Amino acid sequence: MADLAALVQGVQRGDMRALARACRLIDERDPRAFELLKQIFGHEGSAYVIGVTGTPGAGKSTLVDGLIRLYRDQEQRVAVLAIDPTSPYSGGAILGDRIRMQQHFTDEGVFIRSIATRGHLGGLSRSTGDVLHVLHAAGFDVVILETVGVGQDELDVTRLADTTLVVMAPGLGDDIQAIKAGILEVADVFAVNKADRAGADATVQDLQQMLSLRRVPIGVSKMQGHTAVSALKRGPEAAAGEWVPPIIKTVAHRREGIEALVDAFERHREHLATTEAGRQHRERRRAAEFRAILVQALIDEVDTRFAARVSEKLEAVLEGRADPYTSAEALVREAMGDDE
Amino acid sequence: MADLAALVQGVQRGDMRALARACRLIDERDPRAFELLKQIFGHEGSAYVIGVTGTPGAGKSTLVDGLIRLYRDQEQRVAVLAIDPTSPYSGGAILGDRIRMQQHFTDEGVFIRSIATRGHLGGLSRSTGDVLHVLHAAGFDVVILETVGVGQDELDVTRLADTTLVVMAPGLGDDIQAIKAGILEVADVFAVNKADRAGADATVQDLQQMLSLRRVPIGVSKMQGHTAVSALKRGPEAAAGEWVPPIIKTVAHRREGIEALVDAFERHREHLATTEAGRQHRERRRAAEFRAILVQALIDEVDTRFAARVSEKLEAVLEGRADPYTSAEALVREAMGDDE
Repeated sequence: MADLAALVQGVQRGDMRALARACRLIDERDPRAFELLKQIFGHEGSAYVIGVTGTPGAGKSTLVDGLIRLYRDQEQRVAVLAIDPTSPYSGGAILGDRIRMQQHFTDEGVFIRSIATRGHLGGLSRSTGDVLHVLHAAGFDVVILETVGVGQDELDVTRLADTTLVVMAPGLGDDIQAIKAGILEVADVFAVNKADRAGADATVQDLQQMLSLRRVPIGVSKMQGHTAVSALKRGPEAAAGEWVPPIIKTVAHRREGIEALVDAFERHREHLATTEAGRQHRERRRAAEFRAILVQALIDEVDTRFAARVSEKLEAVLEGRADPYTSAEALVREAMGDDE
Repeated sequence: MADLAALVQGVQRGDMRALARACRLIDERDPRAFELLKQIFGHEGSAYVIGVTGTPGAGKSTLVDGLIRLYRDQEQRVAVLAIDPTSPYSGGAILGDRIRMQQHFTDEGVFIRSIATRGHLGGLSRSTGDVLHVLHAAGFDVVILETVGVGQDELDVTRLADTTLVVMAPGLGDDIQAIKAGILEVADVFAVNKADRAGADATVQDLQQMLSLRRVPIGVSKMQGHTAVSALKRGPEAAAGEWVPPIIKTVAHRREGIEALVDAFERHREHLATTEAGRQHRERRRAAEFRAILVQALIDEVDTRFAARVSEKLEAVLEGRADPYTSAEALVREAMGDDE
């Protein structure tokens, strides 16, 4: 375990190679990752985590680049996690990363990494959460979680952030309406990027209208040992002290609007630090994280200890000798030591 | 259980209200859903399942509408599952559905349902798989799985399909390139929709080029009791008998290209029925399904039997008295009856 101790120290020093190694161990679900996470827990700094999501083609990457530069000008240390679930590459750099890596390669204050979690069942937000712990421990000031896809997993990932930025652009088609409905719930700040294009004002108005009709989650209820967001309530007016997502127009490739964006982030960060809603947000996030860790630990344990039995049952299912529902039930009973 | 017997019969008759009820039970993870699925297993018909995914704004819904009409003209019974993970509504009809419902409302040969699985951990493909069993049992000829989002969960869902159609459109921006990489792997047929627009030929050429460089998964390896797609191999040339995804130009709102699309589906269906690749595809799907069912059964069991202990540990984590990793480990040991 001397090896692990060195890794823990390297991570805490913010050593880039140690960080890359820690991320790789997490990606590969190496048992040492679990030990590492246990050891750094409680010795963490607290980076401000910004989630960035939005419709493909809205210019997220360029906007993120602008944010990196601005934060670097303020001498803050920045990490970027590109959540690219559609990438078939595991843990490596995708095309966009490589381009950005070149720009920031010599800058010791920037750490960029892709998370590609194809095949990690229920896992995107779990492994991203683990990597976030590593980045907190390494003392980064700002972490940007950027998603490439727009789907359930991606929205879940943004729940790991303190502040979620949703990037839209004018004229991106009709069925984006449908996506907006889901995105509205997670957005703390909106950017209408490519704001020099025709239709930008219409997009802003459109968002304003959707916001005025938006549904507001009302707290958290405990259900069977895990927390779940309870029924949604229609909130026609913003309640006192409620956060109303600002809509910022940006033209990322000309670096316009980036300062206004960072101002909005600061206001939201202040809001989180000082309100009951902020406290609930942090609690919800930690409850969801605990649940994800528990589920993964269960799966790992069954895979390790019941590998042979799982294989047998699988074979029976594949050969049509058993139905998957009854087989799964039987395996769970065995695993829980409940064999009548 | 008289109630359940009636439901099973209703489903097998293809009764619309019984189908809606079965879907609702699955959505709500009602224990009766599990019983229902056990009972219909082995008494199923075999619908041809078409997955439809692609970039937002490409016109998927209009294309799906064209497919419904064409199949109905052939007097086939069609079910559509709209996988809309971003929708905050559970199990209900989303906007797009309501519009389509109106068109097909009086048609007993069309069943349309949204699956919104926010909060079902690791669950989109699981609950979709369950609903598919119900639709098979109800004797539909064709099932269309349409995704709204584009992310990991959505790509996983298309793996439940026999044939996956990926819909693109000209001029949808740059970072769609990144999404394409993931989509290429799952596509069996491409539609370049809005083919009357400028840039359609460029999109087709672009796809052809990517296909010529595409990576081909080489089979399945067994790992710790579950199957995982093994390392990807670069496939510069199509091997003999290998399926090369055709690219079909469509203009969905004018119903152009729909017949050509259905022809391509028929050829792919034939390919699956007669080749080793088709057999492997079915096996992979059933293995993945079994694993998803097993994981969900594990989670349900822990939630039911260890609810109080999970709550206690969660509280300790939330109050900062324990780290989530050590707490999860301890719970798993307890659940597996391994208390030293």
